[in-house]
Amino acid sequence: MPFIKYNEKNIYYEVHGEGEVIVILNGIMMSHMSWKAFIPELSRNNKVVLLDFLDQGKSDKMDSLYKQDLQVEVVKAVIDKLELNKINLFGISYGGEVALQFALKYKNLLNKLILFNTTSNTNSWLQDIGRGWINAAETKDAETFYNVTIPIIYSPSFYNKNIDWMNKRRKILYKVFKEDFLISMIRLIKSAEGYDVKEKLNKIDISTLIVSSEYDFITPVAEQEDIYKGIPNSQYILIRECGHASMYEKPNEFINILKGYLFVEKEIKIV
Amino acid sequence: MPFIKYNEKNIYYEVHGEGEVIVILNGIMMSHMSWKAFIPELSRNNKVVLLDFLDQGKSDKMDSLYKQDLQVEVVKAVIDKLELNKINLFGISYGGEVALQFALKYKNLLNKLILFNTTSNTNSWLQDIGRGWINAAETKDAETFYNVTIPIIYSPSFYNKNIDWMNKRRKILYKVFKEDFLISMIRLIKSAEGYDVKEKLNKIDISTLIVSSEYDFITPVAEQEDIYKGIPNSQYILIRECGHASMYEKPNEFINILKGYLFVEKEIKIV
Amino acid sequence: MPFIKYNEKNIYYEVHGEGEVIVILNGIMMSHMSWKAFIPELSRNNKVVLLDFLDQGKSDKMDSLYKQDLQVEVVKAVIDKLELNKINLFGISYGGEVALQFALKYKNLLNKLILFNTTSNTNSWLQDIGRGWINAAETKDAETFYNVTIPIIYSPSFYNKNIDWMNKRRKILYKVFKEDFLISMIRLIKSAEGYDVKEKLNKIDISTLIVSSEYDFITPVAEQEDIYKGIPNSQYILIRECGHASMYEKPNEFINILKGYLFVEKEIKIV
Amino acid sequence: MPFIKYNEKNIYYEVHGEGEVIVILNGIMMSHMSWKAFIPELSRNNKVVLLDFLDQGKSDKMDSLYKQDLQVEVVKAVIDKLELNKINLFGISYGGEVALQFALKYKNLLNKLILFNTTSNTNSWLQDIGRGWINAAETKDAETFYNVTIPIIYSPSFYNKNIDWMNKRRKILYKVFKEDFLISMIRLIKSAEGYDVKEKLNKIDISTLIVSSEYDFITPVAEQEDIYKGIPNSQYILIRECGHASMYEKPNEFINILKGYLFVEKEIKIV
Repeated sequence: MPFIKYNEKNIYYEVHGEGEVIVILNGIMMSHMSWKAFIPELSRNNKVVLLDFLDQGKSDKMDSLYKQDLQVEVVKAVIDKLELNKINLFGISYGGEVALQFALKYKNLLNKLILFNTTSNTNSWLQDIGRGWINAAETKDAETFYNVTIPIIYSPSFYNKNIDWMNKRRKILYKVFKEDFLISMIRLIKSAEGYDVKEKLNKIDISTLIVSSEYDFITPVAEQEDIYKGIPNSQYILIRECGHASMYEKPNEFINILKGYLFVEKEIKIV
Repeated sequence: MPFIKYNEKNIYYEVHGEGEVIVILNGIMMSHMSWKAFIPELSRNNKVVLLDFLDQGKSDKMDSLYKQDLQVEVVKAVIDKLELNKINLFGISYGGEVALQFALKYKNLLNKLILFNTTSNTNSWLQDIGRGWINAAETKDAETFYNVTIPIIYSPSFYNKNIDWMNKRRKILYKVFKEDFLISMIRLIKSAEGYDVKEKLNKIDISTLIVSSEYDFITPVAEQEDIYKGIPNSQYILIRECGHASMYEKPNEFINILKGYLFVEKEIKIV
Repeated sequence: MPFIKYNEKNIYYEVHGEGEVIVILNGIMMSHMSWKAFIPELSRNNKVVLLDFLDQGKSDKMDSLYKQDLQVEVVKAVIDKLELNKINLFGISYGGEVALQFALKYKNLLNKLILFNTTSNTNSWLQDIGRGWINAAETKDAETFYNVTIPIIYSPSFYNKNIDWMNKRRKILYKVFKEDFLISMIRLIKSAEGYDVKEKLNKIDISTLIVSSEYDFITPVAEQEDIYKGIPNSQYILIRECGHASMYEKPNEFINILKGYLFVEKEIKIV
Repeated sequence: MPFIKYNEKNIYYEVHGEGEVIVILNGIMMSHMSWKAFIPELSRNNKVVLLDFLDQGKSDKMDSLYKQDLQVEVVKAVIDKLELNKINLFGISYGGEVALQFALKYKNLLNKLILFNTTSNTNSWLQDIGRGWINAAETKDAETFYNVTIPIIYSPSFYNKNIDWMNKRRKILYKVFKEDFLISMIRLIKSAEGYDVKEKLNKIDISTLIVSSEYDFITPVAEQEDIYKGIPNSQYILIRECGHASMYEKPNEFINILKGYLFVEKEIKIV
């Protein structure tokens, strides 16, 4: 069974394919299931490790509050269990925050770091946005939670053009946004409060790719700009006309950028 | 007393100063009170007319749902009462939507049209953002309503730099966000559903100024770009590093742009 | 005759209107003539002082190389002659560079500072662009000088939409770009080499307005962003879909922003 | 010897590696030599075909003027000679223009189309920029040609940060910019006058990747936006803080995006 134990808790993980390893860290409302459409292409040349954070997907729920560094140890436990080394670590949004903290603590385990739609700190603005999400979760009403959290993570142009798809998704998510899920969400959001690695970014000395979306209204472009300026050996790409949920809005730009970065063997120097 | 009757309802208005007329239409959560800091400067050379829409400020509450075109008639009633003509009409956000509809219906009354942070239509995305605000209002909880609606209307950089001011504002707004206010908000938000003048913009043949904020996450820059492309005789200015609530974040850029536009007498042609 | 003597050289100036003073400093290829279309509106409420720098317009040519700080003294000499005080100083491009240096040396003479399309330093890139312009001037061929310098200072969209106007302008400029003019241009360009006030911007403690154009390919937006970050009490506005020659591309946005800023009497504080 | 004959002219080409084919079309001032640093990585998984256009690199010079469609036939001749099929066609700038015309004429030969820093038409603005380059070439002076054409194709930030590299490059290019080269340049620039496929873009029905640079002052972002809107099945990525010569400024972002796009086998659909 694809579980490991961490502190008495079950952590769900999956491994797909063979090759250089990439470990995928989910955004806050995602789970291993969110990557289904990407797995065939991603696992064609790489060993892909998916995992659910505590309070996410098939991993165990928590009983009390914790900080994101607990999730860093969850990732470490999975890597240890699978005896992985020199892994490429990918994170999006919440997953990117955990990836940055992992890179600061366990950089020897890493080859490349890949950050989509990530911030280096939960500033007051983002914290209060998060508190609005918590308040919405506390209503235990799926519709409230959907309307408060989902439209804003898409770009207006995508949402409007794909309103039928969004409405199908709304129905699916109403089933997901049950009381248990919403209570886990509250803990997950709170675990990111106080997060701040902005001043430590310059200690990350591995090759890093940073990807922004033009219309990301949760972790706006300026946040990734800070990370790009902070990490010495970093690349920076922007996806045009795209919101925070870049993997859903622009799945092909998403996978191309990710695979291209994994695939290139060494840095090119123009002399 | 500065009220007029419209359909048995009291509409509150104020007049300040003498000179060319400017009528100010509020954003959805604002009232005539919001302009206090601007009145001395605005009324120094102009006759400034403030008014509260139905369900806003000191104007009467409504008992049932209505559409924004009712607010258009409210504006018309105030203008008639004051026997104004060739007015300059300013609107921000919700007020800009009413201003656009007013311009289409009563263009002969207008001199110049000024639109800050305005959209030409309540698209699906904006409608669903609005429904999240309605859900938040339905909790009747001031904190929930604040967290869901306020942070997102400011730019992250402003919010973070002015967190003390924001926290003072939070306390003030907790007192404002009482049940009555929240029920009015629900009607106001619903009155904008279905709004769409995008295809009629080319019929607006008066001089128009359009102002965007770089980090407006409610009516993003692309919305004002549409209006600029739609209205033949329009000017377009952007305030950098500013969110949706441009008047609070950048009061000086705000007043300069507004007064400059009012103040210039005729169009310059380079020959 | 509207000339003053400075170091044995004639400096041409003009005064229009009455009111608070605004002194206008030209861009490098401009002269007092460039402002003709703006004078009626500008001088309606202000005393407008135009002047030609050394090597510009009706002012005397120079015989040898000099630095921009000589132009700072030219401005000072005109201000002294006219016994002006608490002036508002406007500069665009080259004129903005002189204005910044003036503000650092004679800040007591100033009320407000207004900078359109200005950089805080002639960096290597801009210097080499300038050397290309010098090389073009050295051919003494009007067509070469036009093609090398003029298209790039307009936005593509403006240039393409107004190609008839551009072609008329081309004919006019062919008459202007005579040998004498081109030799003066070489000295003017060289006078800006070595210019750098970037680290001193924080010493400018007067109210300052900074205006960028979205498609300014000579002093790109990032340059004005530096100035905005450097000067503590500054405002920052951007003109959309506009190139370096903002006054020609967007004369109405230009004059509105300028007059609005002059016109507002005191800073608004939101409390 | 790696030449083919086309219309009595020698066309130089090179083939590197094995795998899916990618044909590389150079920018106007480039040649097969420009790709040296990229070949090891590019040819690791692909058969890479380099070629020099007529009037470029080792290919023959022309004796009279011609249009870009001649270069389209040059590409076709190389492809025929090598008996290639279902190729991926890459073009940058001038090469992108030829690639677009190739795709319209010979789309059955293509698999994917990749366009970096490309425009769909030589509009009046770009034509006049080009005429300035022609005027500079006509001086037969390497310094003039360098200063007029090179700084503007780099972003200011790259140029300033890498001024030592730029100055080394200046020396190398002074040797390249000999009379013969400059006369060829004039013909190449003229061959692009009149180019316009903007209204035909919707006929390109193969998968296309479009890449812009944020500070591209020759083919600004708006040009690629047009292509993205025109070609139905297209992806669009932007490289931040980068000028027109994206391959030199951001070689790693460049190769990642290119390889990622080549490497992904089929389009991902989110259901």
